[in-house]
Amino acid sequence: MKQSTIHSPALNSIHITDPLFSHYISIVAEKLIPYQWNVLNDCEPNTEKSYCIANFRVAAGEQAGRHEGMVFSDTDAYKWLETLAYCLERGEARSYEPMAEELIDLIGRAQRPDGYLNTYFTVNCPGKEWTNFAEGHELYSAGHLIEAAVAYFRATGKTRLLDIASRFADLICEKFAPGSSLENACPGHQEIELALIKLSECTGENKYADLARHFLTVRGKAGDFLERNVRQLGHNRIFPEFAAYDARYAQSHLEPVDQSTAEGHAVRAMYMYSAMADVARKYTDVRMAESCIRLWKNVTQKRMYITGGIGSSGFLERFTTDYDLPNDRMYCESCASVGLMMFGQRMSALTGDASYYDTVEQALCNTVLAGISAEGDKYFYVNPLEVWPENCLEGTSMSHVKPERQPWFACACCPANISRTLASLGQYIYSQDEKSLYVNMLISSSVATTVRGQEVRLEMDSGLLQNGKAVFRLEKKGEGSVMLRIRIPAYLKGFAFHLNGSIIHPAVENGYAVLAVSQPGLQTISLTGSVQPRWVCANTNVRADTGKVAAAYGPFVYCLEETDNGKNLSAVYVSPEAAPIPEKAETGLPGRLPVLRFPGQRLDSGLNSDQLYGTPSFRFIPDHFTAVPYCLWCNRKPGEMSVWLNALIPAPAGTDAG
Amino acid sequence: MKQSTIHSPALNSIHITDPLFSHYISIVAEKLIPYQWNVLNDCEPNTEKSYCIANFRVAAGEQAGRHEGMVFSDTDAYKWLETLAYCLERGEARSYEPMAEELIDLIGRAQRPDGYLNTYFTVNCPGKEWTNFAEGHELYSAGHLIEAAVAYFRATGKTRLLDIASRFADLICEKFAPGSSLENACPGHQEIELALIKLSECTGENKYADLARHFLTVRGKAGDFLERNVRQLGHNRIFPEFAAYDARYAQSHLEPVDQSTAEGHAVRAMYMYSAMADVARKYTDVRMAESCIRLWKNVTQKRMYITGGIGSSGFLERFTTDYDLPNDRMYCESCASVGLMMFGQRMSALTGDASYYDTVEQALCNTVLAGISAEGDKYFYVNPLEVWPENCLEGTSMSHVKPERQPWFACACCPANISRTLASLGQYIYSQDEKSLYVNMLISSSVATTVRGQEVRLEMDSGLLQNGKAVFRLEKKGEGSVMLRIRIPAYLKGFAFHLNGSIIHPAVENGYAVLAVSQPGLQTISLTGSVQPRWVCANTNVRADTGKVAAAYGPFVYCLEETDNGKNLSAVYVSPEAAPIPEKAETGLPGRLPVLRFPGQRLDSGLNSDQLYGTPSFRFIPDHFTAVPYCLWCNRKPGEMSVWLNALIPAPAGTDAG
Repeated sequence: MKQSTIHSPALNSIHITDPLFSHYISIVAEKLIPYQWNVLNDCEPNTEKSYCIANFRVAAGEQAGRHEGMVFSDTDAYKWLETLAYCLERGEARSYEPMAEELIDLIGRAQRPDGYLNTYFTVNCPGKEWTNFAEGHELYSAGHLIEAAVAYFRATGKTRLLDIASRFADLICEKFAPGSSLENACPGHQEIELALIKLSECTGENKYADLARHFLTVRGKAGDFLERNVRQLGHNRIFPEFAAYDARYAQSHLEPVDQSTAEGHAVRAMYMYSAMADVARKYTDVRMAESCIRLWKNVTQKRMYITGGIGSSGFLERFTTDYDLPNDRMYCESCASVGLMMFGQRMSALTGDASYYDTVEQALCNTVLAGISAEGDKYFYVNPLEVWPENCLEGTSMSHVKPERQPWFACACCPANISRTLASLGQYIYSQDEKSLYVNMLISSSVATTVRGQEVRLEMDSGLLQNGKAVFRLEKKGEGSVMLRIRIPAYLKGFAFHLNGSIIHPAVENGYAVLAVSQPGLQTISLTGSVQPRWVCANTNVRADTGKVAAAYGPFVYCLEETDNGKNLSAVYVSPEAAPIPEKAETGLPGRLPVLRFPGQRLDSGLNSDQLYGTPSFRFIPDHFTAVPYCLWCNRKPGEMSVWLNALIPAPAGTDAG
Repeated sequence: MKQSTIHSPALNSIHITDPLFSHYISIVAEKLIPYQWNVLNDCEPNTEKSYCIANFRVAAGEQAGRHEGMVFSDTDAYKWLETLAYCLERGEARSYEPMAEELIDLIGRAQRPDGYLNTYFTVNCPGKEWTNFAEGHELYSAGHLIEAAVAYFRATGKTRLLDIASRFADLICEKFAPGSSLENACPGHQEIELALIKLSECTGENKYADLARHFLTVRGKAGDFLERNVRQLGHNRIFPEFAAYDARYAQSHLEPVDQSTAEGHAVRAMYMYSAMADVARKYTDVRMAESCIRLWKNVTQKRMYITGGIGSSGFLERFTTDYDLPNDRMYCESCASVGLMMFGQRMSALTGDASYYDTVEQALCNTVLAGISAEGDKYFYVNPLEVWPENCLEGTSMSHVKPERQPWFACACCPANISRTLASLGQYIYSQDEKSLYVNMLISSSVATTVRGQEVRLEMDSGLLQNGKAVFRLEKKGEGSVMLRIRIPAYLKGFAFHLNGSIIHPAVENGYAVLAVSQPGLQTISLTGSVQPRWVCANTNVRADTGKVAAAYGPFVYCLEETDNGKNLSAVYVSPEAAPIPEKAETGLPGRLPVLRFPGQRLDSGLNSDQLYGTPSFRFIPDHFTAVPYCLWCNRKPGEMSVWLNALIPAPAGTDAG
């Protein structure tokens, strides 16, 4: 196993021009940063109070009161700072830098002399620090602090937040180091592991990465620390649903290197797997890498929705079992798909394999984007593939499913997670190592970076869905050869490359077409191929999708909405033999993505309105249907929505009687 | 509205010979009474402790300790006594009468001097009586005490338990009477209303029925008493899930006379609707009767499973919305279907209409019987129509669904409710009024009673499913005319009657064939007709059942089990054009019900095992399938089960492309 050096270029070198993504990215700086700032300060009307800034003030001794809100409310501030950092790095949202500075000062004042920083424990449970690992989220919050600090330092060069985070990280290193009294402890919500890797890379201090590795080594050892912790606690239960706590919930049922199936809370799992991939790479840990590959396969081949959503159980937002992918009652948290992007990015960096980006793109273009409204002011936490608003009732098994996006929630993980992902999207599009520039996703944009000591500028104009063509204009200053590695997406068929107008036949390695470019100056490379709307089915073992198909176009999964197709989408049948036809969107939705149109049938069972059950007299009624990209659903009128549609499958010949 | 006098003959006059039901009924006396007695006394190994008898001892001051177990644990004893009473009335389980006497004495000693009787409040919360209506179950427990007392008095003529119950009922009358401080209070779990009606009929005391009516009058009035009660309580929450409490949960969102849709907890709803039907009849209350009819229609035409199961939400075991009938995640509590039988029986008594018994039979023959194992030692609380054992995981949204029957639970409502229903099944088969003997369900049995002052004995031998024939031998002593009213079940087609060998053409009124019998002596009446296995579909609006059919035969719904048909039943397709073929059962299951066999197809989507999604290449593989009665599922090997099967529906002509 050779150590990979693949990493992302700096965000300030990347400019995204794709109409869909640039729409959402501009929303982050223009709307989300201001909106979320108001929420943190509890001065946004019509949203639940976050108490976030107030808690820091109370912890700093500058305001009377108790900690209010979620136990991990500090992370709202940290994720806001991280998101803002990415905006600042790209030259946006500069007017919020003074607020950030003010907030960072406040965070500094809330930090205790020994470096400890957590407003919940400082205010409400002093003396109880480092006791409630299953529920307390102390290390989780520390992780988000560290991620924000690294991002803010990279964006601004200012060290104040990095100093705060490093002091806290130093304390954590001391408290949890092998040989200490907490040497067997591990976080109840993973996050700090990947943050410590970032801090280690940013500061050059190996001890932080070593602690990340330590957390991944002690986890799941010795009769599960967390299960004992959650049961033995003398203090009040923070999360009542943790009565059902089991070791799988926080992936502490086995040592991470021995894990093979994705279990438990999906966000915890993704954050841990991401850190495992980081550790596998940094320490050239073959067993850890193999475990990552097994877990990746289990997620993507057995436990993931076609939308890149994960977490089949609404209760505890967790994985369940292979092929259990119910379409209406699952969780599919936006944050979990952000985590899947993070895991995929790291797996590709670990292995140099492009195919991980098929899944990163799937998660991004469907569940992550669906998590935010086109206006940027409302959010889905839960991302079902089928919604019938009438049965999404409070006080029932379906109460977690919201048929419409909601304003900021008290537990505001998803809005902030989506924001920071969009604000730093460039890190997923491009990567590089000592010889190559990688194009991981064909999202129109430009990048300017240095490869092999040469300044390289690439402009990518991707119209694959519009005209089957992506154009890459590469400008290079030096004479040395640079590899341009362009991922060939799974949905692109029969591709061809042209260099300055002449056909070329680049080798394809690990899913990347590899173009060696040696001449200086501007080279124009074009990738052409066929991207057609298609019907997709699920594996026969996915009980929820038997006999069903979903429409897809490029990385985008499509869905039917009531506003285009009327009520009762479960009665729609389509022929998988007839491909959907893309048509120009007149939907007013961002991104100029086409809609898909296709003929089909509606099934009527022949019963009267007062007959609940009766003799079938099935009848098909021909109709035409319009599908829109799943990521854009519920941006017009709320109503029913369905990704999977019944397939009209010809009955076998000569079997009239079945 | 004429006051109906329809009532059930005494249980000691009815003897059930049907092989299926007599199997289960004999189990009650032979196995359940002893088993449940051991459970009440906490001396049954391998079951959760009930603490039931122990709690009475503690309340009586004869044992130290606290109340343990469920807040309504007293009802386990009351339902055991009620069940035993029905057995005793039929001459069974006599050896348990001394234990019953001993228990009744203990209950008497646990009763407080003022008549109050509830071990939880007496022991754990003295002084808090009549404060926690939403959760406390005091009136619910009182209701079960009264039902037991009435049954025990009827069976034995002994008045001790009736005296205990009456003293408590007198106290309740006093506490809750109009003008008292609790005049606006209503029970959080209905049950006492129907019990008070029984007590009133048994004792001739109208005040009990008046209080039942009062409870149904104050309910839902004045800004909902229960919602205020559950929110304002200073004491500890008994049921954590009541954080989501809303007025609909306990049907207190509207006054009962104004209700039109079945809402909230299904058992609470059924017990209330049953009492409403009783009150409508007793007080000739037209508005209440109309409300009952609306609610019955809403349940049976919009919110009921084909198995007679109700309660579409696993969380809070409640109704949701019209046509929301998911097959795998619902509750469908056995108790709720018992309640539906009670409601249907009372609606038929109120209206004289036989058709209510179509639903009573549906609930009985499917969900209620399915609730108990063939051996009588294990129980389903939740009765799904589709089970995939692998996804019924603890700590997930599916944890309430058990793929196998369980031994006695701490919350032991269902076993006892099924027992008392089976032990008193005769009350559902026959009813009578001043002129007629009604045969409500064609379950082989005999009855001896007095109609119009004449001794009447009827022997019914029903072989409708076996040979399309039911024979009724009616023996009558007197000369006067007696009406024999025989319900014509909805599943019986093309029926004919013969009297002593000659064809007759009785009128059909309200779903009953009406035969006037005047000669004394023995008359032999035969009913012949066609009962064929059939495919049933659901209304187009039932999203969960689109394009699906279920096999049924007479009142029995059938299902596929993995043990007969292999794994992945969701991939099975059958032709609704080809009727299932009944075949003699070789299953070792009780009741000699046939199995149904039919050809069909299995769908394969054509993907490899490591492909979760891909291009469909649908392929049907012919196969043959065997269905067993749903009530008998999971009595051989556990595994997958499915009631609804995909229908092979011919694609419309000339629409190759959909």
